[in-house]
Amino acid sequence: MCELLAMSANVPTDIVFSFTGLAERGGVTGPHIDGWGITFYEGKGSRTFKDARPSSESHIAQLIKSYPIKSEVVISHIRQANRGCVSLENTHPFTRELWGQYWTYAHNGQLSDYESKFTGKRFNAVGDTDSEMAFCWIMDQVVEKFGDAAPDDMLVVYRFVATLADELRALGVFNMILSDGEHLMIFCSNNLCYITRRAPFGKAKLIDTDVVVDFNKETTPNDVVTVIATRPLTKDEQWNVLGAGEWKLFKKGELLIA
Amino acid sequence: MCELLAMSANVPTDIVFSFTGLAERGGVTGPHIDGWGITFYEGKGSRTFKDARPSSESHIAQLIKSYPIKSEVVISHIRQANRGCVSLENTHPFTRELWGQYWTYAHNGQLSDYESKFTGKRFNAVGDTDSEMAFCWIMDQVVEKFGDAAPDDMLVVYRFVATLADELRALGVFNMILSDGEHLMIFCSNNLCYITRRAPFGKAKLIDTDVVVDFNKETTPNDVVTVIATRPLTKDEQWNVLGAGEWKLFKKGELLIA
Repeated sequence: MCELLAMSANVPTDIVFSFTGLAERGGVTGPHIDGWGITFYEGKGSRTFKDARPSSESHIAQLIKSYPIKSEVVISHIRQANRGCVSLENTHPFTRELWGQYWTYAHNGQLSDYESKFTGKRFNAVGDTDSEMAFCWIMDQVVEKFGDAAPDDMLVVYRFVATLADELRALGVFNMILSDGEHLMIFCSNNLCYITRRAPFGKAKLIDTDVVVDFNKETTPNDVVTVIATRPLTKDEQWNVLGAGEWKLFKKGELLIA
Repeated sequence: MCELLAMSANVPTDIVFSFTGLAERGGVTGPHIDGWGITFYEGKGSRTFKDARPSSESHIAQLIKSYPIKSEVVISHIRQANRGCVSLENTHPFTRELWGQYWTYAHNGQLSDYESKFTGKRFNAVGDTDSEMAFCWIMDQVVEKFGDAAPDDMLVVYRFVATLADELRALGVFNMILSDGEHLMIFCSNNLCYITRRAPFGKAKLIDTDVVVDFNKETTPNDVVTVIATRPLTKDEQWNVLGAGEWKLFKKGELLIA
């Protein structure tokens, strides 16, 4: 299995603190040594850092931990391979362009009996993971339903994606994070939780390594920052745990669809 | 205008030496301070590092110069903005997936009177540069001609792309680099040159900064490495300069279509 991390915020915020905790699970406190990746949206643009090496010993992960890239939407993933070999093309997150937006996706879990379903039309997997194939299948379904232009109401699209995710959950374990750079959707199959931090901010201590952050010093009173993770990353904070089949949609750190 | 850099090699090769020269042109020896980007293919996978900051003072460019990522195909670009503001979404190279391959593209030049041509069908620009719109137009034309599956002979696709590039050249300046991760195509409008290095290897000195490399120490006798650039990067070597409308296709460092 793998571990997911994501963020939605109303001001550009760095994810150094949370990523530091996640990266430890890539070889130190966790067994997820088969690569890692992180996507930062900055405006409509995005950039993804990936490495097929364990996050705990990656030069590039070291850069991410030391160089605070400020972003409103972040998606990250550390991998323990089950389907597909260890290689760059099998490393999450995956990105595709649709409707002039970059869509970014990461998956935790494993699917079975998907070969006849994931045939690939417009969107095709580059690697050989069930995860990327599932992403391409979702994107193909979205285009088939909504066509070549984005509908005015994007919530309709995410409600449709939730029905697709539920269909995939029937094939195994499907915890998913998906974003168009503005919205952040999370879908839970068995392991996903989130926390929304806003004033008054307090301190938090990472579970996986000996780091404490005082959010009060790092934030302004109007900041709203939601962090999503497979398992809670901090002690002394109350994380919201999602149930099987539950999903949420965030925008600028706030819950849009509960 | 901007500067382009690319590489095609028959063994995974690092581009640290050439990128070091290029990066100097991003603020030190050249005026290209509006961001930079570099894409490395590793197998079918690829990863792109981008920054909207000048390459000569970017933390991430520093990483690329010090951490040798070995790759068979590399595309890089440093930008001096003419169309489109300075932002991450306007930073080259641009990537789209087609036929289960990542296609990566960078452009040097400027186009005019393209609004009615670049309407966007399946592929749409995320940013607002003429460069990205031209890329999406090319990809749309390729799909329209060849459909949803790659033809057996990819050379036919590149020959078609060359006719499209020639059509774009009529709208202004269009120096282009395009790759599917295996082939590397270069199209010249006014400024593009390349050099193929193979045994016996010699020494080369960068024009833009005081660095000398002895390729003999860095390579094995069977290595074939082609480097493409807007202007020659080294002294004491003979670069091949392309003429207006000329294009080349490389695979594993060797010229496929001259």
